[in-house]
Amino acid sequence: MTPERQLAVSIPPLDASAMGQAASRQDRLTRPAGSLGVLEELTVRLAGMTGRLDPPLRDAVVFTLAADHGVVAEGVSAYPREVTAQMVLNFLRGGAAINVLARHAKARVVVADLGVDADLPDDPHLRMLKVRRGTENITRGPAMTVAEAVRAIDAGRGLVRDELRGGEGMDIAITGDMGIGNTTASAGLICALTGLDPVQVVGRGTGLDDAGLERKVSAVREALRVNASSIPKNPLDTLAALGGLEIAGLVGVILESAQHRKPVLIDGFISTAAALAAAAIAPGATGYMIASHQSQERGHGAALERLGLRPLLNLDLRLGEGTGAVLALPLVRAAVLLLNEMATFDEAGVEERDDAHATPGAIMNRTTE
Amino acid sequence: MTPERQLAVSIPPLDASAMGQAASRQDRLTRPAGSLGVLEELTVRLAGMTGRLDPPLRDAVVFTLAADHGVVAEGVSAYPREVTAQMVLNFLRGGAAINVLARHAKARVVVADLGVDADLPDDPHLRMLKVRRGTENITRGPAMTVAEAVRAIDAGRGLVRDELRGGEGMDIAITGDMGIGNTTASAGLICALTGLDPVQVVGRGTGLDDAGLERKVSAVREALRVNASSIPKNPLDTLAALGGLEIAGLVGVILESAQHRKPVLIDGFISTAAALAAAAIAPGATGYMIASHQSQERGHGAALERLGLRPLLNLDLRLGEGTGAVLALPLVRAAVLLLNEMATFDEAGVEERDDAHATPGAIMNRTTE
Repeated sequence: MTPERQLAVSIPPLDASAMGQAASRQDRLTRPAGSLGVLEELTVRLAGMTGRLDPPLRDAVVFTLAADHGVVAEGVSAYPREVTAQMVLNFLRGGAAINVLARHAKARVVVADLGVDADLPDDPHLRMLKVRRGTENITRGPAMTVAEAVRAIDAGRGLVRDELRGGEGMDIAITGDMGIGNTTASAGLICALTGLDPVQVVGRGTGLDDAGLERKVSAVREALRVNASSIPKNPLDTLAALGGLEIAGLVGVILESAQHRKPVLIDGFISTAAALAAAAIAPGATGYMIASHQSQERGHGAALERLGLRPLLNLDLRLGEGTGAVLALPLVRAAVLLLNEMATFDEAGVEERDDAHATPGAIMNRTTE
Repeated sequence: MTPERQLAVSIPPLDASAMGQAASRQDRLTRPAGSLGVLEELTVRLAGMTGRLDPPLRDAVVFTLAADHGVVAEGVSAYPREVTAQMVLNFLRGGAAINVLARHAKARVVVADLGVDADLPDDPHLRMLKVRRGTENITRGPAMTVAEAVRAIDAGRGLVRDELRGGEGMDIAITGDMGIGNTTASAGLICALTGLDPVQVVGRGTGLDDAGLERKVSAVREALRVNASSIPKNPLDTLAALGGLEIAGLVGVILESAQHRKPVLIDGFISTAAALAAAAIAPGATGYMIASHQSQERGHGAALERLGLRPLLNLDLRLGEGTGAVLALPLVRAAVLLLNEMATFDEAGVEERDDAHATPGAIMNRTTE
């Protein structure tokens, strides 16, 4: 049984008719064709996802999922494992970067424990979805069982369904993460899913020195070797072998959002690992992804290229939590407003281009996918 | 007399003490050092400009200045000259991209006629500051006299003073432009001020074909030859020889804002030409500039490098009007909120990095200029 069937995922195709209408309206707006750059293509893609030229984007929900990683025992992080739980508490108190940015962008933050290795206090703002207390050390064997990976994916899917059913609804999903050690798990997963070598993918995470970086490359290489028999099987086995519980949860967030034709704004390196896994499970999910930013982490650009996604921002961020995606949210909203609120040449009485001097390619080469 | 003295410009130095305080607070926030990338440096620079860690950025004013260009006679634009006036009317009706984006970002748009070659109607939202009806053709001689350039600069400075004195005030200035042919004038100005060759600087503007691009390169080369005696004199002569009336107006906007210690968010290619001229006139002005985006226009990246500015966005925009700068405004505001609203490690009870695995460079190498 394929993972897509095992998980009962069914991603609707993009709406080609709405995409055509969006591209056609872009050409009639009072500005030179192509002058809004990647924002033009973005509105065409959003029309494909939602079937609308004016998709609502008001109710944005950041899913910041937290979990711990057994591979931290290999000395692959600049911070101790305890920081995962401490940062979850910081999210609940509203003092973390994601809280500040979400308030600014008018997005809601859903914080969920998918596998933190600590007893977190009861808190109405913390969703308790712990599948297990952290993963196993991936340099010794699989991170988790396939059944556990499926449970974490289902937990992420449930979070999305709850938001869609809730009073406020959800127009756009935003992925976020917290987990000391999770750039190591993500690097392993990206290598396994793309065939890239660890030296092309592994970066300094929260700030490793050269010796730490070397340890991290070795740990990822060892994890790929130890789990070599699981990787070729299928993407669900790969995810269970190398991933993290929060990463599997994000796979669920992405798949469920796409299934409901909701755009998903992908955050940084960890979220992109989840996006690659989601795309491997259900290729149609990629059509619903928007890459928010390219981070400092080494293999992030290559991983986004594999997905065929161009990031909106490149600010050398490497914080996770969903921060880069929330920073990009105003751009996504602005792109949709431009398509809908700008005057057309007809409405404004502005002359169109003098085609003696025009580049036909500028008009014809618009990307519509 | 230097242009700086002739124009009576006096730019205050950046506040080094506030910059040090901002950098020090950045290091205590609950996130890995350096993980907010260029946003960290941005808050340090904003502290230097304003003397505050929490500069207000609510009242943002976009100065969209319009003028015509005699060089259009050389066939250097994909649009007819009449579009400048038509687009000014579109700005006044609120149907242009800058109107949509400014509403979204809660910025005010000030539209001013610095030299449109048309009789624009009286309109309470149009500032009539016409110095002359368009420039001369720069392939035949200087665009304007030095006295006219000074009048245009002074007009731009007056617009800023009016906003500062007005009921709402101005926390941050945003540059914008409209003028068919103004990428040609800007390219000439950038070549003259940087020594770059026209083939490195001239781009397709609103969408020229290959033959049009060749004509435009030739026109810029001819303009540099014809005006060769003016260029070495001083930046005011260079601006008069090659610039545009809206470009000179933007030089005034930048200089006056910097003089009042207000940050200036620089839009695209045309605004960057004005920024280079402002920096040549008063080098201290550069400290108050924030580069909003890198456009599609060929020499834009090189021009920004000369200013030592890294753009926040790179979205292949080429629209002008101030659009790229307004798109970047939420990032600037978010950076300041992060510095002020995030918890510090002490406040949150989060452990700091384990320095056995840390990169000292990540902490020490923070850029503070």
